[in-house]
Amino acid sequence: MKADLIIAHAFVLTMEGKGVGMVENGAVAVKGDTILAVGATDEILAAYQAERMIDGTGKLVMPGLIDAHIHTGLSIFRGMAQDMSHWMQKGLWPFKKNTDEDESLKGSLVTIIEGIKAGTTTFCDFDHSMNRIIQHYAKVGARARVAETVNELPDDIGQIPVGELYPLDPSIGEKKLKDSIRLFEEWHGKENGRITCLFGPQGADMMGAELLLEVKELAQKYDTQIHMHVAQGDREIDQMVKRYGKRSIPFLDELGYLDSRLMAVHLTEATKEETQLVAKSGASMIYCAGSIGIIDGLVPPIMDFLEAGGQAALGSDQAPGNNCNNMFNEMKFAAILNKVKRSDPRVFPAWLSLRLATIESAKAIGLDHEIGSLKKGKKADIVILNLQDPSLCPIYTDPIRNIVPNLVYSARGSEVETVLIDGQVVMEDRKLTTVDEKEAIRQAQEAADRISRRSREDIAAAGSDVYQMMEEGYL
Amino acid sequence: MKADLIIAHAFVLTMEGKGVGMVENGAVAVKGDTILAVGATDEILAAYQAERMIDGTGKLVMPGLIDAHIHTGLSIFRGMAQDMSHWMQKGLWPFKKNTDEDESLKGSLVTIIEGIKAGTTTFCDFDHSMNRIIQHYAKVGARARVAETVNELPDDIGQIPVGELYPLDPSIGEKKLKDSIRLFEEWHGKENGRITCLFGPQGADMMGAELLLEVKELAQKYDTQIHMHVAQGDREIDQMVKRYGKRSIPFLDELGYLDSRLMAVHLTEATKEETQLVAKSGASMIYCAGSIGIIDGLVPPIMDFLEAGGQAALGSDQAPGNNCNNMFNEMKFAAILNKVKRSDPRVFPAWLSLRLATIESAKAIGLDHEIGSLKKGKKADIVILNLQDPSLCPIYTDPIRNIVPNLVYSARGSEVETVLIDGQVVMEDRKLTTVDEKEAIRQAQEAADRISRRSREDIAAAGSDVYQMMEEGYL
Repeated sequence: MKADLIIAHAFVLTMEGKGVGMVENGAVAVKGDTILAVGATDEILAAYQAERMIDGTGKLVMPGLIDAHIHTGLSIFRGMAQDMSHWMQKGLWPFKKNTDEDESLKGSLVTIIEGIKAGTTTFCDFDHSMNRIIQHYAKVGARARVAETVNELPDDIGQIPVGELYPLDPSIGEKKLKDSIRLFEEWHGKENGRITCLFGPQGADMMGAELLLEVKELAQKYDTQIHMHVAQGDREIDQMVKRYGKRSIPFLDELGYLDSRLMAVHLTEATKEETQLVAKSGASMIYCAGSIGIIDGLVPPIMDFLEAGGQAALGSDQAPGNNCNNMFNEMKFAAILNKVKRSDPRVFPAWLSLRLATIESAKAIGLDHEIGSLKKGKKADIVILNLQDPSLCPIYTDPIRNIVPNLVYSARGSEVETVLIDGQVVMEDRKLTTVDEKEAIRQAQEAADRISRRSREDIAAAGSDVYQMMEEGYL
Repeated sequence: MKADLIIAHAFVLTMEGKGVGMVENGAVAVKGDTILAVGATDEILAAYQAERMIDGTGKLVMPGLIDAHIHTGLSIFRGMAQDMSHWMQKGLWPFKKNTDEDESLKGSLVTIIEGIKAGTTTFCDFDHSMNRIIQHYAKVGARARVAETVNELPDDIGQIPVGELYPLDPSIGEKKLKDSIRLFEEWHGKENGRITCLFGPQGADMMGAELLLEVKELAQKYDTQIHMHVAQGDREIDQMVKRYGKRSIPFLDELGYLDSRLMAVHLTEATKEETQLVAKSGASMIYCAGSIGIIDGLVPPIMDFLEAGGQAALGSDQAPGNNCNNMFNEMKFAAILNKVKRSDPRVFPAWLSLRLATIESAKAIGLDHEIGSLKKGKKADIVILNLQDPSLCPIYTDPIRNIVPNLVYSARGSEVETVLIDGQVVMEDRKLTTVDEKEAIRQAQEAADRISRRSREDIAAAGSDVYQMMEEGYL
């Protein structure tokens, strides 16, 4: 039978079954956008011929990684808001108010490239101006499951003193919701189904209950998911208690929000009982280990969530204080932070991190019928890594196989050589095929230079910990 | 004035002063093994000419990283002992007993290459057979400050059931001490001073008090430091209490061991009071964030140590359960693990991680007169990184500079392009100049294949958590 591409003689991590589904000396056959077959090299080569053959000797073939929560529109502020208190108010907002949409978009493209170069093939991007960000995904060729940010916050929200109740403006919410609907109608299912849309209420504290219910109805009408920050910080809980006398999760529960349509991001401030409530509701949890570790100094209750039977995924969140969008980083941090949280090295083993960045993530974001594992009939989102790198050497296969632990704890992402998305080779020998990486970096730098000039006064006025570090020579 | 090499138009992180000592549009002039000058590009170019010029536009020039505690002899077991309990007894020893010195050496060379490719220029290697490992450093051209492991443990120590007192054999200790002295006399100060030797008692639980005192006397006689694991696990404390009725640090204090000659590694089990005692004694602490996080699920008391005024450094320890020897990983883990330990994002900022891998580390290991910062008269141990990588883009210099936070939280090590050690270019465009990387990997793989065949029965008998994962398809 004819295939377009066969990768053979590789270690193939299918991520099928309850573990990692390793096939040693395995092969994958691809036709068009679809995986034709996965199996032992001799069986695949006996059954299929292809014009293009990739020799997988010394290489690892695995499903593309899924970044289940990312704000690429914030990437233009990479590294501006870590090691500080009030990262959002004092770190991010003074820059954000001095940045226009075009500038933000330049950062977005660089981070999509960053992700692909580290093996990410699916991006659950959540941001403003998604109708423009989405064009990056269309062009680059990545899989995207996106949400336009919906809230009722005025543009000058950064001016509100820390601790004061946000002024909510329903007219702003209605406009943003219309943008969401337009995004959905224009883009959902486009690019051979590679692009799908969700609804993205920013948080229960940032909009009224009425708008939340409107979003819920729309998600039902369009039969899609709701991607939403839930209990994402003491700031949010403070707002909710001040406004409603209730914490976020009980509030959302009463509103009928906790069900399998919900992708609940962070749960940083969720109590054990609240976490269990969310897990048992069928909602999924998106755990952003690096971001929440760095900006909050906290480890969200992912272990409680998993132990309550919840469906979880990993996300890289935002670059201002993470400071990268690299799922290898997330897998590493997720594992080690939970080991130390429980004081037990057996907690969060490598295979769990890997599943939460592949097949479990696909389930959490509602795309497991298409992606997350290498299986006949699924989409050809495939990454090929070089195992002949000092950081992954030597390879043992017996009596214990060390590839998965080394992938999670030692690989950096730079071992990824080739990336296929929807059957298309979007990176080969670490070179993007669909976009000019250097030009993207050049344009982002130009944008940053402009933002830099405009932000001086606001940053000085914010007087953050980072600004003080700068003054004192620590940056 | 004539220089051999000038790197100009770069961001230069000198690590001089109390912060990071950044010079924008800076230059470094090198002659022979020494830094001639560091400063603004126009000043350096006005004062010096060189045959070789490196254009540092878009690049970062910084001191080579120092790995203050590494066991390269264990690297052949990379990824075989994580996510489990009793990593040493059930994970490491069943392999170690089936491995010969030649095989261990093959792994050592790969890890030295791994380190250099991630910007490490100085390795405080601590292992058996150091008289052979040291030849790798001589050949590769890396700076090494090494210790031969001294203990009184018989070779079959892996057979001792967990919890039973180790049998100590003074005749073994005397032989190993002789090896240490021979190593010192043959290698200390060799290779233009690039190689120096320390004494390496493995731990207070693994040898008698008499031998510890002999080591102490030798360190005084040869005027060098003692590199030693201290309070490195509940296993050690258990042994000490059973043997002496005392915990490790009070025992060492009474023995007169706590002073500025001591490099105390781990302190995992040290109480706050014990930690302060070590810090105030002038001994340095080597903190191995990744290794102890992964194999023990713990965060050693580095913050208490620093707050007590102690001199600390970072180390990558061992690859069986870290699973890499990459100082970028250590800087990241050190910062984030301490943020979550203290539930405060301001704790362990990026600059602190960077100092603990450069200038503070140089002080901790007693080499700050030669390395750790870029300064006239110091040795030319210099790494050049490409900042035009998506993971480090965009660069801001005003009103806040984001290079150091992105270096610590986002860089993977693969951004390092060029490495100079003692003035010699040992890596250029990511290619090692002194050793054949592919051949080193090939030989390590052959060694691993042999170890694999020999270890089957012992690994099955050990019945570790990892072995069970293998049986169940999680590896």
